Amino acid sequence: MTGDPPPPGPARRVHDARRIAHSALARHGSHTTLTQFHHWFRAHHRHRHARVRPIPLTALQGWRVDPDTGDIHHHTGRFFSLHGLEVRLPGRPVAHWSQPIINQPEVGILGILAREFDGVLHFLMQAKVEPGNCNGLQLSPTVQATRSNYTRVHGGAQVPYLDHFRDPAAHHRIADVRQSEQGAWFYQKRNRNMVVEATGDVEVRDGFQWLTLGQIHQLLAEDDLVNMDVRTVLSCLPLAAPSEVPATDDFHAALLRSADPAAPSRHDLDDLLHWITEARSATELQLTRVPLNRLADWRHHDGRIIHHSGHFFEVTAVAVRAGGREVAQWTQPMIRPTGLGVIGLLVARIHGVLHALLHAHTEPGYADVVELAPTVQCTPANYQYLPAAARPAYLDQFLRPDPQRIRFDTTLSEEGGRFYHARNRYLIVETDPAHAPETPEHRWLTLHQLGELLRHSYYLNVQARSLVSCLHSLFGATT
Amino acid sequence: MTGDPPPPGPARRVHDARRIAHSALARHGSHTTLTQFHHWFRAHHRHRHARVRPIPLTALQGWRVDPDTGDIHHHTGRFFSLHGLEVRLPGRPVAHWSQPIINQPEVGILGILAREFDGVLHFLMQAKVEPGNCNGLQLSPTVQATRSNYTRVHGGAQVPYLDHFRDPAAHHRIADVRQSEQGAWFYQKRNRNMVVEATGDVEVRDGFQWLTLGQIHQLLAEDDLVNMDVRTVLSCLPLAAPSEVPATDDFHAALLRSADPAAPSRHDLDDLLHWITEARSATELQLTRVPLNRLADWRHHDGRIIHHSGHFFEVTAVAVRAGGREVAQWTQPMIRPTGLGVIGLLVARIHGVLHALLHAHTEPGYADVVELAPTVQCTPANYQYLPAAARPAYLDQFLRPDPQRIRFDTTLSEEGGRFYHARNRYLIVETDPAHAPETPEHRWLTLHQLGELLRHSYYLNVQARSLVSCLHSLFGATT
Repeated sequence: MTGDPPPPGPARRVHDARRIAHSALARHGSHTTLTQFHHWFRAHHRHRHARVRPIPLTALQGWRVDPDTGDIHHHTGRFFSLHGLEVRLPGRPVAHWSQPIINQPEVGILGILAREFDGVLHFLMQAKVEPGNCNGLQLSPTVQATRSNYTRVHGGAQVPYLDHFRDPAAHHRIADVRQSEQGAWFYQKRNRNMVVEATGDVEVRDGFQWLTLGQIHQLLAEDDLVNMDVRTVLSCLPLAAPSEVPATDDFHAALLRSADPAAPSRHDLDDLLHWITEARSATELQLTRVPLNRLADWRHHDGRIIHHSGHFFEVTAVAVRAGGREVAQWTQPMIRPTGLGVIGLLVARIHGVLHALLHAHTEPGYADVVELAPTVQCTPANYQYLPAAARPAYLDQFLRPDPQRIRFDTTLSEEGGRFYHARNRYLIVETDPAHAPETPEHRWLTLHQLGELLRHSYYLNVQARSLVSCLHSLFGATT
Repeated sequence: MTGDPPPPGPARRVHDARRIAHSALARHGSHTTLTQFHHWFRAHHRHRHARVRPIPLTALQGWRVDPDTGDIHHHTGRFFSLHGLEVRLPGRPVAHWSQPIINQPEVGILGILAREFDGVLHFLMQAKVEPGNCNGLQLSPTVQATRSNYTRVHGGAQVPYLDHFRDPAAHHRIADVRQSEQGAWFYQKRNRNMVVEATGDVEVRDGFQWLTLGQIHQLLAEDDLVNMDVRTVLSCLPLAAPSEVPATDDFHAALLRSADPAAPSRHDLDDLLHWITEARSATELQLTRVPLNRLADWRHHDGRIIHHSGHFFEVTAVAVRAGGREVAQWTQPMIRPTGLGVIGLLVARIHGVLHALLHAHTEPGYADVVELAPTVQCTPANYQYLPAAARPAYLDQFLRPDPQRIRFDTTLSEEGGRFYHARNRYLIVETDPAHAPETPEHRWLTLHQLGELLRHSYYLNVQARSLVSCLHSLFGATT
């Protein structure tokens, strides 16, 4: 693999997909062992620590609450704002609700720098503090920057390694695609997901570390370590194991085969695309922007905005004093979910090829009504309040899964820049396809098909992208 | 080709692409000759005539002008509304403007029913009147319906053939994809473009006619006959000529080869996708909704809303009295452009494969900032007012084209349901690639690559889709 010049044209993607698989199977890197990594990460934890203090919304500084609407804006007009949204979904179990939502029209960069060492692709990862992280520091992409960050609206320091991503045509781009983020909390938020390969020398700055994909995959099995931005960027990588890779068992063989373009699939790609068009067109989503202070079911309480039921999420604020960030001190609003979520993917072997059951899911903030979500994605506690008919199909398979059939089970954090202690249990559970029949909203897809969809924007939601990375992490599994 | 059962899985698309090419090469149909078609169409013209009378905006009935904002809504809250938009594009020659825009959140169906007769696919076309058509009647898809139409908000008659498109899973879908419309005049308008194949008998109702793709292609060469909706739907069809099809000359050979997935291309698909991501991310489009009566450069004049320069377009209204439509009488606002547009595509043979020069183009109404447009798309008269730097690259190649190198030249109408006498000269001009170098905003693509992008939403704008259909129409050329 090493030393071969990359092929031109369409074969380039196939070549990259094999190099990615090669890196996924590399459980040891050229730069660090996982033991050394943990030592390094703990050391950073000690001196990169951020003090985050919950404050009432009224104590925000640099943010303006509009006296008429109650909407919350940064005084520069940049970063993000919060307003209200009224949502109608005629014919659905919950046909009408209102909610606060974050409006962040700026498109940021989530970028990972890659480089070959000893013939294996390594990825430059960052130990980065975010105010919403339950544990302060998590493993982050090389660059994670909003436009306000990198145009330095707040006068902070320059973002390291940004040049590789601002002039990507000068490098080889392994992935470069805009993807959505949480459509339940963000209105049409999108980020640019990039993996760029460096050919020359790259200085490793303090707080950064080269890891193989196999090493990152092992770290994905640890709670709240690999952050959401890493997971979404890595999901966009092409990945296909060459046929000479030995499978460790039948499940592993079905997984490797699932990434193979030639493997038989339950549906062909056109059928899946037509199904997505159908789901988008059949859903009559009506959105009306409303003032934040006129949301029927929400009220100010104790310096926060909460739902009258106490469920879903609240709008709160934090004061941050951090080392190692662009700006040392600031306050900001945050979304704080009220419970631990379950994000679960059913997988099954169909003719010896692993398939995943995706759900055509609607959230108000999506660019086009529906994106493919995991089989289940919810906060179970909310169903104490919501009608029984709103309870997701297949939820029970994740609440009491057979331990023998759990393939992945880690609690991971959502983005700590906007969400405060937002954590979900990510589960991959194997089932018999007969126990999880398709519905008009559910389809079985192969890993290769998920990869084809991920070349394009807004097909897979951010939770599904996380689970694609979790599925990829099983490539190097030694069971 | 006839009688073969369709193959399963991915080969199905290849099979369909050949059947489409076969129909494109069929210059004679099983149901009508072009002479008979014209006779039939003229007969319809006589008794399907609509009386359309320009009226001042103040004479609209069933529409409400908001007293505060001046925004125009239908009294039901359905159909569409008009409001103002302030647009900022920092760094561009025109970095700031404001304009009226149509808001039509409903997604309609543009559907063409297909069926094989004597082994050749035919398409069921409709002679349909629209109030904005300069000539009343144009050739339209089988179904052309907004959700308000087909849920019968205005109490009109049932839309014929709609069931084939409302339960498409019961049929074979050759194409089914959501696409944008004019982003300069519509805010995030999208329609579902469908081609559905019927297997059983289909009653041919008054005003409908089966035509081969080759026949429709011949009609595309006539001014203002094949409407915009037909052009966009047909552009989404897969199309690839089998290698045994004889080329009539070198240009034709390069065209047929361009639709071949195996033909060498200037860029590979990943490079093109990355380029689109780059263009979307590099463009800082800032949109602010503003009241229609507070647009700085626009004013009410003589019952219309016009730009102070007299250029661009005006918001006007019409009263309609029509036969053969769902409702016989109504009034509605319309957008009326002030000049004839030029929509031009440069094509060139690169290593014997025809490539088209697409432009990464921004309009405020796009779902994601940039879509691929023709090489040039503008109303030349507007540059009497706009700064010279805003003049599109390559415009001169379409204002004074070498007659020897014109491959397509027809004046076609835009959608007559919202636009009043909106006409553009659609041109395909062949050039030497050395005379049209790529810029950061221009790339050469093959017809196969355009087809790959058209499987997905929002890559090609509506003008580019029209020109893809015009390019397809050259498949059956006998020069």
